[in-house]
Amino acid sequence: VLAGGVPTRSIRTAEDGWAVEVIDQTRLPHVVCFVRLETPEEAADAIRRMQVRGAPLIGTTAAYAVALAMRRDPGDACLDATASLLVATRPTGANLRWAVDEMKSLLEPLSPELRAKEAYRRAVAIADEDVEICRRIGEHGAGLLRAAAESAPHPSPLNVLTHCNAGWLATVDWGTALAPIYRVHKDGLALHVWVSETRPRNQGALTAWELGQQGVPHTVVPDNAAGHLLRTGRVDLVITGTDRTTAAGDVCNKIGTYLKAVAARDSGIPFYAAVPGPSIDWTLHGPDGVPIEERAAEEVAEVRGLSRDGSLETVRIAPAGSAVANFAFDVTPARLVTAIITERGICDASPKGLASLYPERAGKRIRTPETG
Amino acid sequence: VLAGGVPTRSIRTAEDGWAVEVIDQTRLPHVVCFVRLETPEEAADAIRRMQVRGAPLIGTTAAYAVALAMRRDPGDACLDATASLLVATRPTGANLRWAVDEMKSLLEPLSPELRAKEAYRRAVAIADEDVEICRRIGEHGAGLLRAAAESAPHPSPLNVLTHCNAGWLATVDWGTALAPIYRVHKDGLALHVWVSETRPRNQGALTAWELGQQGVPHTVVPDNAAGHLLRTGRVDLVITGTDRTTAAGDVCNKIGTYLKAVAARDSGIPFYAAVPGPSIDWTLHGPDGVPIEERAAEEVAEVRGLSRDGSLETVRIAPAGSAVANFAFDVTPARLVTAIITERGICDASPKGLASLYPERAGKRIRTPETG
Repeated sequence: VLAGGVPTRSIRTAEDGWAVEVIDQTRLPHVVCFVRLETPEEAADAIRRMQVRGAPLIGTTAAYAVALAMRRDPGDACLDATASLLVATRPTGANLRWAVDEMKSLLEPLSPELRAKEAYRRAVAIADEDVEICRRIGEHGAGLLRAAAESAPHPSPLNVLTHCNAGWLATVDWGTALAPIYRVHKDGLALHVWVSETRPRNQGALTAWELGQQGVPHTVVPDNAAGHLLRTGRVDLVITGTDRTTAAGDVCNKIGTYLKAVAARDSGIPFYAAVPGPSIDWTLHGPDGVPIEERAAEEVAEVRGLSRDGSLETVRIAPAGSAVANFAFDVTPARLVTAIITERGICDASPKGLASLYPERAGKRIRTPETG
Repeated sequence: VLAGGVPTRSIRTAEDGWAVEVIDQTRLPHVVCFVRLETPEEAADAIRRMQVRGAPLIGTTAAYAVALAMRRDPGDACLDATASLLVATRPTGANLRWAVDEMKSLLEPLSPELRAKEAYRRAVAIADEDVEICRRIGEHGAGLLRAAAESAPHPSPLNVLTHCNAGWLATVDWGTALAPIYRVHKDGLALHVWVSETRPRNQGALTAWELGQQGVPHTVVPDNAAGHLLRTGRVDLVITGTDRTTAAGDVCNKIGTYLKAVAARDSGIPFYAAVPGPSIDWTLHGPDGVPIEERAAEEVAEVRGLSRDGSLETVRIAPAGSAVANFAFDVTPARLVTAIITERGICDASPKGLASLYPERAGKRIRTPETG
């Protein structure tokens, strides 16, 4: 997709052929710049600080981080330590664990002198596979959007509500929830996207920026507005991404997703989750097993933005003495999910639905290195 | 209640006996200061800019504004113009219209030379009545909180979730939703309040500040967290205020309230609205007639807070080119409201329920000056 009119991915190998460059998402939408990662520690720090974010992009970044580690030291100890370092950065998203397990199971059987080259090859392949997964999610989801536009009770544009950022910035390119939107927009379907701002980290601003760069009409609203929009007929469908989806179809995603799903159900509006295969946790079979990350209080108590003089500044909004809690994700039970959109097609949010698309995975109930 | 350890009301007559002093709530929780209002225009401006806010306090401020007008010019033209000026400031809350109609119907029959004195007398009485209404809501609601604490499946503290600010800052003293909390806290019941921050205007910070001043344990969370808290058993009951409640029990309140109510229902948690009589609109009989105020985009696109150097600063968080919508209220349909707490007792959120407490009002279906 485009950033400043130039086709751009959120992560890339540097021109020197070994370092990794990622967009610093903590400075978006106000400043667009790439930062260079040279070590697995820098990559882990970028994940922890959310310079890179979005479960698929975190997975790809972790794969690159293993390659950076293997370039420095291809021994078993370094591979294990890097895997542990990466997995500890963020507990909720499934793709991180999936990518680290992918890399480990590929590299462990190899002799050390082959590992760096093979790690880079696989990291690049994971990035390319992610693009292909998102492209296919876009195709499958586009069918749902077109059908909704045709059956909408009022004339176009189709009104879509999304939450957080599940666009190309959260993946390598295209995005998950936004991929169908980019696809139908490219095909000329009239649509308008309600972007909920997604406190506390305000990833809605990333979505708004992305949509603006592609020329997709959109409106930013506070998270609180989602219910009003749904209840008063201003939304035709809701679509979000996921950080981890259980084998039963429970969708763990950015905090606030469940509120949108339950309000959508109350208003009879469909709620779809765009779910890449690597974000499915085949070891979980209900909504209550997902570890929910709790992040620093400052992310809630303080807000960063563009000051009048054009610099990025942080202001405190909470009273000095008040406790603050910062749960980063919530789980939408499968019963509230109208359907799941994957790279392999669309299915019910149920064990049977997911098993029909991933028969080779659905039988395995115990965590193995391969399934992560 | 206490502010800085000193018993304080949110509005008071100045020491000179005629001007009005209100806390400037746009500077809370960082700066506590009163501003002086000398004319109805200044009062209208304070309402519009939300230096005073909260439906009950807006009503009382409007009553004082009429008194300020009558002091300057007690003629019919000034009375009518002041009424129009005030009613146009904010469309959603019912108390504003109620207070203006109260003042008009009292003053119109009087000869001009009697009006100023009588207007001040009634404004002071409306303030005192508001305190008494809130005190009684506190008593009735306290019974619900005590019963919930006794029947809670886990040991204390009782966990209450509230939204926006329906405390003493939104009224004259005590508050509506917070009055029962202050009451049981004073009586020694162990409780903890989840305070949702209430984007875009962040009135949760007012609630957190209020609770902190009274020593009530509380935790600030992003609005997005409410569903997760409810779904995972961290909340025993939800209680909010209202800006306008229909005769059928539909509760119009700060944007985001409906999301909490629908998630509470999904989790089997009771949702209560604290409803002062003057906020009931007896002319409305369903959720779709309430005018929903839309406010400036800047309230969403920008955030004001305390900068590192201790000054109040505004930073922009939305991308420069993005459209923004700012609906200030939503409506929670009566079917999602477990019960309504009024100064006259607790009732079902239904025409019958409200009629049982206000039999003298429930029969009137046409707007009259008295019922507003």
